[in-house]
Amino acid sequence: MSSLDKFPGIKALTFDVFGTVVDWRSSIIAEGKALEAKTGIGADWAVVADHWRACYTPYMDKVRNGELPWTNLDTLHRMILDEIVIKFDLQGLSEEEIAEFNLAWHRLNPWPDAIQGLERIRKSSTIAALSNGNVSLLVDMAKHVGLPWDSIISAEVARHYKPDAIVYEKAAQLLRLKPAQVMMVATHVIDLEAAAGVGFKTAFVHRPFEYGKERRVSEFKLERFDLVAENFPELASLIGA
Amino acid sequence: MSSLDKFPGIKALTFDVFGTVVDWRSSIIAEGKALEAKTGIGADWAVVADHWRACYTPYMDKVRNGELPWTNLDTLHRMILDEIVIKFDLQGLSEEEIAEFNLAWHRLNPWPDAIQGLERIRKSSTIAALSNGNVSLLVDMAKHVGLPWDSIISAEVARHYKPDAIVYEKAAQLLRLKPAQVMMVATHVIDLEAAAGVGFKTAFVHRPFEYGKERRVSEFKLERFDLVAENFPELASLIGA
Repeated sequence: MSSLDKFPGIKALTFDVFGTVVDWRSSIIAEGKALEAKTGIGADWAVVADHWRACYTPYMDKVRNGELPWTNLDTLHRMILDEIVIKFDLQGLSEEEIAEFNLAWHRLNPWPDAIQGLERIRKSSTIAALSNGNVSLLVDMAKHVGLPWDSIISAEVARHYKPDAIVYEKAAQLLRLKPAQVMMVATHVIDLEAAAGVGFKTAFVHRPFEYGKERRVSEFKLERFDLVAENFPELASLIGA
Repeated sequence: MSSLDKFPGIKALTFDVFGTVVDWRSSIIAEGKALEAKTGIGADWAVVADHWRACYTPYMDKVRNGELPWTNLDTLHRMILDEIVIKFDLQGLSEEEIAEFNLAWHRLNPWPDAIQGLERIRKSSTIAALSNGNVSLLVDMAKHVGLPWDSIISAEVARHYKPDAIVYEKAAQLLRLKPAQVMMVATHVIDLEAAAGVGFKTAFVHRPFEYGKERRVSEFKLERFDLVAENFPELASLIGA
């Protein structure tokens, strides 16, 4: 059975990346520990990772509300990291070390099931990253760990961040598809709601360990999404890939 | 020996697609013949293919000079095809058949050496399509024949066509590289000259059969380019990949 049988109109699946495809938290912690091993300059890297990620939305909001002109995610990550250096007393790091640590976001590792699931889905549909990460971040990440994207669509191209509607609209337009022919895959309700708002189909994938080892169950009602899956292989099965 | 040995600064190679990676002419002729077999409506498909391609630059010029607003290549191809239908007396084709024939450009076949060469180069450098084709054309083509791009950069994103300088500048910026860290690969001198104009390194690849079986030798002086190769495997060897 091909995906055409179960979702006859779906031609492409677009994937949120941070949290949905890759485990940003454990990857950033590991990069922090490696930096500490090299430099002797330490911190509670889990707290650093959570703080870095917590500042992500407020910084994108600065772009969204016009406080900042269009600024890509590498640059926003660096602005946050400059604050982290002060807050966590990391001033002993060299400029080169700080710049390299900022690129940790280009080297995030996928969830264990992600590549296997993507490879399956790719056989019957176009798979595209649809991420707030900038193009070079997404290209480097895909090359680093072997994410088999057919297409990488970045907020950097739309010059707007998800969940702004224009990002999803632009993605469908670039893929030459109607919104109803595209399924957004994410572990974040806000992303899926925005995609549904422009007419995408939606698949929620549980990533209960995104914020650490204590399993978090989604507190949201998930029935409103077209699909709910535990992981990418289950998603592949649900769409008949 | 890695590419870093021979071209230590090069981090990415950007590839022209039509003519350099794929053999548009024989592919379009084959699609025309298949259409004729299905519909009984015929033409000299080599003449059609050459005419279609010959109108490519004049139509991009309409965008460049402001006669047309930004218009992607699928749409320009369709505008030319609408003229072809009249010129070559193909009015018996249905709208569906014409629309499908226009998508022949999404299904072009690579030169026999292309994929093997790209796979080799990809091991040591980022490889990106840098084409006037629109995103969906390039994504469909890559999926259709298995072109292993790390990144697909389209004129559609810059909203300018090569050889406008901004297209190359945008590509370097999206890849987070300085122009001198990028090598443009093409079989067209004008493309390489424009890339060199913004600081890219350049590699000319001979594609003597782009315009048919009668081998054409480049009449241009090629010494000004950083590399000249007969095909992609030779290019791979020249950069040490």
